[in-house]
Amino acid sequence: MTGYTEGYRVWGWGGAADVPVPAELLALAPFVSETTGVPAQEPLPPVAPPALPPSRRLATLPPSLREMASDDPVDRARHAVGRSYRDLVRAMAGRIDSPPDLVLRPVDEQGVVDVLSWAAEAGAPVVPFGGGSSVVGGVEPRGLDAAVSLDLGALTGLVEVDAVSRAVRLRAGTLGPAAEAALKPHGLTLRFYPQSFERSSVGGWVATRAAGHFSTRLTHVDDLVESVRAVTPSGVWESRRLPGSGAGPSPDRMLLGSEGTLGVITETWLRAQPRPAQRWSATLAAPDLATGGRAVRGLVQAGLLPATCRLVDAGEAALTGTLTTGEAALVLGFESLAAPLDGETALALELCADAGLQVLESGPRGSAGEAWRSTFVRAPYLRESLLLLGVLVETFETAITWDRFDALVADVTAATTDALRRVCGEGTVTCRLTHVYPDGCAPYFTVLAPVRRGSEVAQWDEVKAAASEALAAAGGTITHHHAVGRDHRPWYDRQRPDPFALALAGAKAAVDPRGVLNPGVLLG
Amino acid sequence: MTGYTEGYRVWGWGGAADVPVPAELLALAPFVSETTGVPAQEPLPPVAPPALPPSRRLATLPPSLREMASDDPVDRARHAVGRSYRDLVRAMAGRIDSPPDLVLRPVDEQGVVDVLSWAAEAGAPVVPFGGGSSVVGGVEPRGLDAAVSLDLGALTGLVEVDAVSRAVRLRAGTLGPAAEAALKPHGLTLRFYPQSFERSSVGGWVATRAAGHFSTRLTHVDDLVESVRAVTPSGVWESRRLPGSGAGPSPDRMLLGSEGTLGVITETWLRAQPRPAQRWSATLAAPDLATGGRAVRGLVQAGLLPATCRLVDAGEAALTGTLTTGEAALVLGFESLAAPLDGETALALELCADAGLQVLESGPRGSAGEAWRSTFVRAPYLRESLLLLGVLVETFETAITWDRFDALVADVTAATTDALRRVCGEGTVTCRLTHVYPDGCAPYFTVLAPVRRGSEVAQWDEVKAAASEALAAAGGTITHHHAVGRDHRPWYDRQRPDPFALALAGAKAAVDPRGVLNPGVLLG
Repeated sequence: MTGYTEGYRVWGWGGAADVPVPAELLALAPFVSETTGVPAQEPLPPVAPPALPPSRRLATLPPSLREMASDDPVDRARHAVGRSYRDLVRAMAGRIDSPPDLVLRPVDEQGVVDVLSWAAEAGAPVVPFGGGSSVVGGVEPRGLDAAVSLDLGALTGLVEVDAVSRAVRLRAGTLGPAAEAALKPHGLTLRFYPQSFERSSVGGWVATRAAGHFSTRLTHVDDLVESVRAVTPSGVWESRRLPGSGAGPSPDRMLLGSEGTLGVITETWLRAQPRPAQRWSATLAAPDLATGGRAVRGLVQAGLLPATCRLVDAGEAALTGTLTTGEAALVLGFESLAAPLDGETALALELCADAGLQVLESGPRGSAGEAWRSTFVRAPYLRESLLLLGVLVETFETAITWDRFDALVADVTAATTDALRRVCGEGTVTCRLTHVYPDGCAPYFTVLAPVRRGSEVAQWDEVKAAASEALAAAGGTITHHHAVGRDHRPWYDRQRPDPFALALAGAKAAVDPRGVLNPGVLLG
Repeated sequence: MTGYTEGYRVWGWGGAADVPVPAELLALAPFVSETTGVPAQEPLPPVAPPALPPSRRLATLPPSLREMASDDPVDRARHAVGRSYRDLVRAMAGRIDSPPDLVLRPVDEQGVVDVLSWAAEAGAPVVPFGGGSSVVGGVEPRGLDAAVSLDLGALTGLVEVDAVSRAVRLRAGTLGPAAEAALKPHGLTLRFYPQSFERSSVGGWVATRAAGHFSTRLTHVDDLVESVRAVTPSGVWESRRLPGSGAGPSPDRMLLGSEGTLGVITETWLRAQPRPAQRWSATLAAPDLATGGRAVRGLVQAGLLPATCRLVDAGEAALTGTLTTGEAALVLGFESLAAPLDGETALALELCADAGLQVLESGPRGSAGEAWRSTFVRAPYLRESLLLLGVLVETFETAITWDRFDALVADVTAATTDALRRVCGEGTVTCRLTHVYPDGCAPYFTVLAPVRRGSEVAQWDEVKAAASEALAAAGGTITHHHAVGRDHRPWYDRQRPDPFALALAGAKAAVDPRGVLNPGVLLG
């Protein structure tokens, strides 16, 4: 028993083996202080999940639903918590603001139908729950009256493989590692690795328009989706499996990003592919982020499609150990299923050199990329330790066209740094590019700061609001791949076209007339 | 005066210089008979546009709209006619079944706002009209009571160029050639060439989810759109310019394919690019379409992205003169902005050889592709001559995953051939692939048959219905890039998920509560 075990079931990223050990946290403290520049505090003492008010709905459930219902307080607490900074600091302190009244776990699609049918009748808000990795308040039943959390965790597995078309049919509750494990014997991969890979689900990816860690092409789940099947209060919404179609607005694109407000995704056909046969990577140094940005723009505008094109500013290069020279770093990677990479990689290096970047290392690589990916998907574990040591660590991201890139980074960095000084006394903001396009890129900001224990949520909310205002003013989107949820609503509402908001509300009212599906997310 | 001049203003593809000359048609007849295998008939005698009932709405228009209104019969007839076979044969015979009551030509966006505002008040159906090249009954006010045709032809031009992000802001009424001419001084191209290029508009492309002639990647206008601006009866719908965004369902993707039912597109930002620096092409022979299909699948599943990957069956290879050996033909082309093509082209040839294809010619090419494109976009002129000579020539297209490709082609060809025999006595059906994807392709069918003068519409409708039923039964989409319009409604209604139909109707009711926008298309 390490002390954190009880609470870890609510807020932890991993399993029993991953529970933080207080002595290890203590030992980690000096390293954290040195690396982040933020003084580590005493490790937060272990806190058990709080008692919750009894379920009001359990007794009213029909027998068929009672079998799949859980009112266990830890279960309910777990379903009130996503994985944002504000979720974690609250849960670590034993604070569960908006627990669901119940957790319902259907074992098949009919169960989902039954839940929605009962919910519409009972007027019960339903919050779909995949892996629970939302960082935007997507799964927290905030402000809802006795909501039920609809956990898709039992709807898992690979249902069908079309080896000819290289497409796979997966149940929505399947988590990333299980999906990959199921595909592996078929020689296929989804090649889709969001940072939440271990804890996010296929259905969640589709519902939130998730993006994987590759920098260009086939990195948005939008482009992997061949068809979607969802249960709505008005019946099953299933699109035809098609490689492309021009028949009206895409039904799939309406569900993509609907965040559980239009229907509960139960299955999807995704495009898969074999593993790459060839890989090449390079690390380059850039004088600064702006110069690196111009180089990266040059690459993608020359028609190159690097699998990895991760530009990090000097601060983040130092923080991650990518480069400790005070320069920005560009990690560039190309992959191919079959064609040789020489032409592209030579051009890429030439364009980077022309743009003033310096090649530190380059060449074919074997599994180096997978090692990096492994570190990438392990980041959530490290973050838990930082939080327990009283370090504010959170990220936010956006996308912007190239013409406004430099100004956006400058404005957002300034506004966020200023807010950190005001709110936390100090703090750092670093920036990297996670995704690049011919017409723009996705800047991703990391914030590190000391916080006052007990005031973490208020402090972060103030910083986040300042950052979001700056993002909006600079013309960026409030989210490139973290979704809207409840946390991004104020900025999302201003960002989206007004008639589109009407259209979306009209669409929702038509399929969910009682408004039971994830109220407060996107709409309502 | 050639005789066809008067009618040509209604149904002709080109300008005054392109009016068919009867003597030339007569001279063309033996060639047509020989090439198509369909005996040419006497050229259809020139027919003047018919008289139309007087406008009912003109007198009721407010003065501001009267300035932009035309009740000229030829103008009204022109706006009742798209460019499908059934449109052309009717118009060539002087038959205008559903003329709009008026044509309204706003000169700016405020004019569009004024039209919609008046229309909502007056309950007047509004049919947006870009270039008028719909082949699915998208612009014909069929079954509508005194509809007005809203012609965007005066809202043209390049408004803004963002050279840094390589994006351009174009007014919706801009036709293909004008858009390219405006971009050329900036060293940019949209690289978007649908067969209707000369007569279709930027706004029409977006409204109908048009596809260009390239076979892979950046060939759907969906992927070129950076933002859209549209006027709806509930205000202006304008999305933020973004290279990517994960904030809720995409507002742009809801307008893409909305075919004028949700709003009138007035402007769009499109992604542009420089002209390719390198081109390579090859012509290969395949024993048959199925073998060619396997080869093509091998290419795209190996990660290759050929700009051109046009596989035509033996019949079409002979018809187009691509190959006269009784084999299927594959025209393969690669393009690059900067990177060398050698690796990809060598792999492509190797994979094709492995699949049993024979290389007839291959190598770098200069403007050969542009010559081909020129022939491609000139096809509508040839088609007019065929129609005037009494030859039924029409196309229809679909998309299907690879696992069902062979069966779909066989079933659709059999059903269509059977219908032609029944309806026309004889006729041929050929097939090509216009677009290819890792998980499937877009088969495109061409029909040639003799028809009875005066019965063309009924004959074609019967054949088209048989073909569409076979497409639907084989799992294809009713359209890959020709849109739904009014002609595809029965199959579209069956194809789309029922709750999606509810959602779309709900969205429309919210932004267009009086239901004035293009009723009968997609909905209603």
